[in-house]
This record gives sequence, structure tokens and C-alpha cells, in this order.
Amino acid sequence: MARIAPLSGFPEWLPPQRAVELHVLDTLRETFELHGFSSVETRSVEPLSQLLRKGEIDKEVYVVRRLHAEDVPSGPAADPDTLGLHFDLTVPFARYVLQNGGHLSFPFKRYQIQRSWRGERPQDGRFREFVQADVDVVALDTLPRHYEVDLPLVMVEALRALDVGEVRMRVNDRRVVESLVRGLGLRDVAVVLAAVDKLAKIGPEATGTLLRERSGATDAQAAAVLELTGVTGTDLSVVAAAAQRLGAGSDELDAALPDLQALVDAAEAVAPGVVVADLAVVRGLDYYTGSVYETELVGQEDLGSVCSGGRYDDLVSEGSTRHPGVGLSIGVSRLVSRLLRDGSVAATRAVPTAVLVAVTDEADRASSDAVARALRARGIPTDTAPTAARFGRQIKHADRSGVPFVWFPGTAEDPLLGQAKDIRSGEQVEADARTWSPPEGDRRVRVVRTSPAT
Amino acid sequence: MARIAPLSGFPEWLPPQRAVELHVLDTLRETFELHGFSSVETRSVEPLSQLLRKGEIDKEVYVVRRLHAEDVPSGPAADPDTLGLHFDLTVPFARYVLQNGGHLSFPFKRYQIQRSWRGERPQDGRFREFVQADVDVVALDTLPRHYEVDLPLVMVEALRALDVGEVRMRVNDRRVVESLVRGLGLRDVAVVLAAVDKLAKIGPEATGTLLRERSGATDAQAAAVLELTGVTGTDLSVVAAAAQRLGAGSDELDAALPDLQALVDAAEAVAPGVVVADLAVVRGLDYYTGSVYETELVGQEDLGSVCSGGRYDDLVSEGSTRHPGVGLSIGVSRLVSRLLRDGSVAATRAVPTAVLVAVTDEADRASSDAVARALRARGIPTDTAPTAARFGRQIKHADRSGVPFVWFPGTAEDPLLGQAKDIRSGEQVEADARTWSPPEGDRRVRVVRTSPAT
Repeated sequence: MARIAPLSGFPEWLPPQRAVELHVLDTLRETFELHGFSSVETRSVEPLSQLLRKGEIDKEVYVVRRLHAEDVPSGPAADPDTLGLHFDLTVPFARYVLQNGGHLSFPFKRYQIQRSWRGERPQDGRFREFVQADVDVVALDTLPRHYEVDLPLVMVEALRALDVGEVRMRVNDRRVVESLVRGLGLRDVAVVLAAVDKLAKIGPEATGTLLRERSGATDAQAAAVLELTGVTGTDLSVVAAAAQRLGAGSDELDAALPDLQALVDAAEAVAPGVVVADLAVVRGLDYYTGSVYETELVGQEDLGSVCSGGRYDDLVSEGSTRHPGVGLSIGVSRLVSRLLRDGSVAATRAVPTAVLVAVTDEADRASSDAVARALRARGIPTDTAPTAARFGRQIKHADRSGVPFVWFPGTAEDPLLGQAKDIRSGEQVEADARTWSPPEGDRRVRVVRTSPAT
Repeated sequence: MARIAPLSGFPEWLPPQRAVELHVLDTLRETFELHGFSSVETRSVEPLSQLLRKGEIDKEVYVVRRLHAEDVPSGPAADPDTLGLHFDLTVPFARYVLQNGGHLSFPFKRYQIQRSWRGERPQDGRFREFVQADVDVVALDTLPRHYEVDLPLVMVEALRALDVGEVRMRVNDRRVVESLVRGLGLRDVAVVLAAVDKLAKIGPEATGTLLRERSGATDAQAAAVLELTGVTGTDLSVVAAAAQRLGAGSDELDAALPDLQALVDAAEAVAPGVVVADLAVVRGLDYYTGSVYETELVGQEDLGSVCSGGRYDDLVSEGSTRHPGVGLSIGVSRLVSRLLRDGSVAATRAVPTAVLVAVTDEADRASSDAVARALRARGIPTDTAPTAARFGRQIKHADRSGVPFVWFPGTAEDPLLGQAKDIRSGEQVEADARTWSPPEGDRRVRVVRTSPAT
């Protein structure tokens, strides 16, 4: 039947793969909560008018409509009250904050781990349905600058806790590049940034052409933009010097550059070698107004950014209420798909079960159930055998799913006495279900690295 | 702006409410994993042909389409390859098992906690987007009968762990009622069961009328159906006796009745007073072929069933491959919405943070960050103050979110030495961030009962 099939761009995992994803999600949650972020989830749908308000029509929004609803056009002319699936977690979060502002305490730190949907052409690491994990802090009126340092460091800590290999976070400040562009006498900053945003993809030559053709830059201006946005590293004094030399200095630059330097320095102190400035990082989305961040797995840059974000001063505003914020988003599905493709991490078993209690006779299943209850009561994930097959088959059933222990019930006098067999080593010991435990490392499924991190 | 507004039927929780939901989800997951169920998630969409194949058009499926896709009719005549949001977790799971059967080990026990969508009219406890928590076991070819006892007991254990008050699970067996109906000489079993399904809503008189009008039952047959499906309790010998008297006995009944009695008995042994037989429980869905289950909160029956399911022998089949299964689903959103409306449970605080580290001077924020890092390294959720306001305001900031402790950094010589203040009692002690801990009960957000369970 044609309907029983995977859908391109809608990933699903088998149980051992899902165990890896769960480990990733648990680790992220743990890190975020340790830093005081509250969990929030939002509904999956927003009115199209919200989803499209930033002109983000290229996000390929999915429209959602009741099957029984009247036929209405589904093209871009659709009713603004029509619902669409959210394409990220920032837009719904902005709406949530405005809607619930009176019930929140600011600065409000939240994490949100949820699915999003984009109707883009699926490719490696790019899905139509995917899980994202976001942290944001939004303030009322004024957002202290230190949050632009704190939040990327939370994400660096989260990625390190995931043991995904070496990561590199490239950071920039919109105010720095924008002041440089203006300092060079170029008026249409958005067009210049759009060209710079393509630098990594199309190279300096084509970017120079774009700058000359679209922003009216002279050869000298185009060359200066390329020189300045070519700066990377942890020492930004070169930027001030180059700006001076190229006549691109300004008070605005002098105000913003130390903040970017402070971000890099603070990161260097906490996680050496991870965070570098890269003046070509501008992030396409037009709502960023300060720091911007992009993160790659070192050696796997082809995957694209696995953690991006920035500061936005005007996204969460309505009338005179203004909530400047800063946030980053980890592409969980992208990250997990690469970890799984790599085979660099794996779950220790396919099921949560640490112990399978054998069943001697179907009529005596209650004894095996009693053993299972006693073990579970002490937090040991336990299952009973599906049938009272011969023990060899019951052991095989455990082995197939990677369950490490099989329990053989003892005498009828005390059903909680029996034998616990480690089916990997074959070692079998007398055991009491009231006191016996598997070794700590076998109690729960763990996710382990099977090859050294790149 | 009209767009910043709640959408009827799409619930969202504030952070302290979300903490209650998270507690519910964590408790369910813990219970399911202790019983050896593996986590599975499926994509949110299925082809309409899958969603509608059981004729479940009344589920009010949501159709999903790319905004930029060609205009195509969205009515029931839509292309079967059109995607819709799943309306439960059983249909996608059935597809998942057929698709991945070669990679799964049977009997396969999985839990799935995910959102589903139904375009029904929203009302108390009935949402358009909602979270469900399902457990199912599917076998290859033969499903041992004991799973029909095991799975409802897992759900009873889960509901008890949630401390939602007294629950009553009403159980039945489709084979029992179907054999009784046939034993009474009524041919159209589906029509009779559809009438019985309405009994609780419309009462015996109207049900009797339905039976006479739709299934062609005589007065005596209708009365017999009502008498037999009126049986509730834990002793099913009355059913056998009544069937005998009414001439509704059969080998089929004799085969099925002991299984239903065994289910009730096993439940009574493990969780006395929770599970009762109720021969009027038939469950609308036509795919059930054995045990069926419905669960209400005692005293809050108006909420409807919070945990339902049953055995299905033919749902997960394709060609000669057959996966009989049994499963139950908890309506998490329905349950949580009632707990929150009640106010019977509450989170101990609105944020995960146990300690807020005060900031003496913005220039010395690094010292406060160092304290926070030291506390987090020992698993204590910690935040630093947003600004170096006067301490009174910093304490107030902690107090507003329910953070129990504020830490005041000490001298520059050793920034990890300071004072920890319990802002509830006012007690303040000298403390070392390398060793000090809040009391165990304050480390993590807890969800506590604020009024006795009904």
C-alpha cells in the first residue's frame, strides 16, 4: 500500500534512535533549568497575519484548515485569520509574551522545546517538520547587555553537555556592521547586509559584484566592506584600526565594538576557543538589532548552523509596550539526524527495561508480576516475559532488545526470591527482589559515544 | 491588535501551570519506562487516506497544505495524498509499526506523548489541539491475553502516581456484549452497540427506542439488551445467570466472560476498588475486538473519560502481516486543564531557580556568575540578578517568582564565600558555593496538592 511510507522531510526515529533524541532533549532541559529558564509551550498554530507580518513568506508556511470548512482560496490572498503552523518558536513566543505580559515577571527567561514546520525542499539536515530548542530572555523596556553574553554561553554549555564534538560559535553585533556600512557612506544598509549574508555561500568576488550592483557601492567601498566583514578572531582592535584607516569610524562603532569584545572575552574565559567574532555573520532575519550568533560543528560545517539567534529590540512590541529580548535556537532534529547518521553515539539498549522477569508457567504469571512490581517499586525498569516459553526463548527475547538481566522466579514460598542472570556475562546470582539491584550503569538506558568526537 | 489573542480550543499555560503539566508528563513517562515501554514519536501529519480509512470523518480532521501550493479543493473530495494533522496517536502508530516492522522486536511496547488535533467545537475539557499519552503493545500474529490486564493496570498506576483523586476504570469485553447481542437473536451487532454507546447520555428509555427502531429489536429483546448491559460490578456470575435466563448464552460468551472476570480480579488484587466491569462500555470506535476501557475521575464524571482504549486485532494489518494490539490513551490536556481549574495542585514556584545570586556592582558581575556556576555544577538551579539594583529590589525580584534563596557574594579574596538568605524565613547563613545546598525540598520545583483529593 502506497500510504504506508515515510514522508520526505518528516523524520521519524526507531526506538534506539529516539532514545538518543530523548537524551538530547533531557540534557537541554536540564541545562536550561539549571540556568533558571522556565518551560513554555505555545499552540502549534498562529494566524497567517502573525506568521507573515515580517514578510517571511519564504518560510513556506503550512496553512491549516478543517476538512469540513468551506472551500476558500489557499493562496497568498488567504484570509488573515486563517491559521498556519508556526515556522519557528520566536514568533509564537513574541505573541505569548504580549498576550500574557501582565502575568509574567520580567526579565522573563523561558525555554521552549517544540516542533515547527516549514514547507521547504527537504535535504540533509533540513526538514519540513523538526524540533527546535530555544532559550530567550525578554525584558520590559530595557534589556541589560549582559544577557547577550549569558545566553550564548548557556547554549555553549548545552552543546558541550551533549558531547557533539567541537563546536564553533561565530558572533557579531548588528550595530558594529551597520555602523561600519554607514561609516563607509553606504546608505542602504539592508541591501549591503543581504549581500554580506551571502558571502560564505558565493565568495568575496560575487559578493563584491552584488555590493556594486545592488547598493551602488564604488569599487573602494565594496573592497572596504569585504575587508571589514572579513575580520574574524578574538581581538577586535583590528576592526577599530581598519575602520580608522578606511574612514569608517563613528561614535556608534566606538559604542558597539567594546560590547562585542566583551562578549568574546567573557566566552573565552568560560569556554576557551569556542566563541569567535566573525563580522560576516549578520543573520538574514531583519529583526536582530544587536548581537547575532551562529554555531557550526567543527568539521561538519556542511550541516549549517545548529544554534543561531540574536538580540531583537522591536520584535515583541505593541503600542507603547516594548520587550527587547535576546535568544538562541538549537536545531534539535538537525543535530540528532547528524549524530545518528554518524553512528557516533548510540543508546545502550532499545528499551528502558533493565530486567526481564521470566515466566515459568502461564498459570504462575502472578509470581513474576509480583517480582516485577517489587523491582519497579525501587525504580528498576522491569518487564515480564510475553509468554511462558522455554527459558532459552525468554532469554533470547531479552537479548534481542538489549535487556541486560533476566530474573528467574524461585519457589512458591517466597516468590520474591529468585536468580538474577546477567545475560551478557552469563553470571547468575541468588537474589531477593526486595533488595537486589542491577549495577548503577545498567539501571537506565544511557547514550554513549561509540566513536571519538570529531 | 486582534491577532494577539487566545484561540478557542488551543490551550496555552502560564509558566506555573506549565510546571504542573510538566510534572504530569514526567510522572507518566517515569511510570511507562518503569514498565518497559519505549518512547516513540511519529510525524504530526498523515495522508488523508490513512486518517479517513476507518470512516472517521467525524473526527474533524485538519488539512495541511503549503501556502504556496496550487489551489486544490479542500473538501472531502480532496486528493488522498493530501496531508492532515493526526487526530489521535493510534492511527499513526499503526502506520509506524507496519512501516518499521522489520526493525522492531515483538511484542513491541511503546509509549507516545504527543499533540493531536481535532476541529471539534471546543468545550470544557475538549480542545482542538491537545496532548495525549498512549501506551500500546502490539504483537506479531498472536497477542497474549495477559496484556489486556497489564496495560490498564499500568494506566491505573500512572493515574494514582499523578494523585488526581479517586479514579474509576470501567471495563468490558467486546466479545462478551457481542455474543450476548447475537445470543438474543439480534443480527446487526454494530447498530445495537451504537445504541448502547448512547446509554449514559440519553438514558435507558431512549436507548430502548433506538434499539427497537434501528436494530428491529422486539420489546423483549430491547429489554434484555438493557438488562444485560446494565450489569456493573466485580462479580460477573450474574451475567452468566441472566444470559441463561434470557436465552442469550453461547460458547462464545462462555469463552469471553472468564477473561473479563480475570481482568477485574487481577485489578482488584493490585488496586482494590478502582476497576469495575460495566457492560454498557462499548467505545464508539469500530476497531476494538476485545477488552475496552474508560476511566473517569470520581465526582468529576462531567469531564468525560480521561483514559480510554481497548484491544484491536485488525487495526495494524497489511496483507498477511497481522499485529494484534491493546492500548490506552490518557487525555493529558483534559486532565491538566481540570487540575488547574480546580486549583487542587500547584507548582511550588514559577521558575526552576532555587537561588538568585545578587549582584553587588555591575562591574563585579563576574563574581556573581562564578557563584552561580559553582552552584549549578552541583545541580542547583541558579540565576543571577538582572541588574545591580539595591539588594531590596533584588530580593523582591526573587520573591515575585517564588525563588526561595538569595545569595550575597562575599569578599573579593574568595568570591565563592558569601551569605545565603532564605527569603521566606529571613534566615541568613555564611555559606560556601562549593558546599552549600538548599534543603532537598527546595532544590527543584515540586507540584503539591493544595486541597485534598476528591
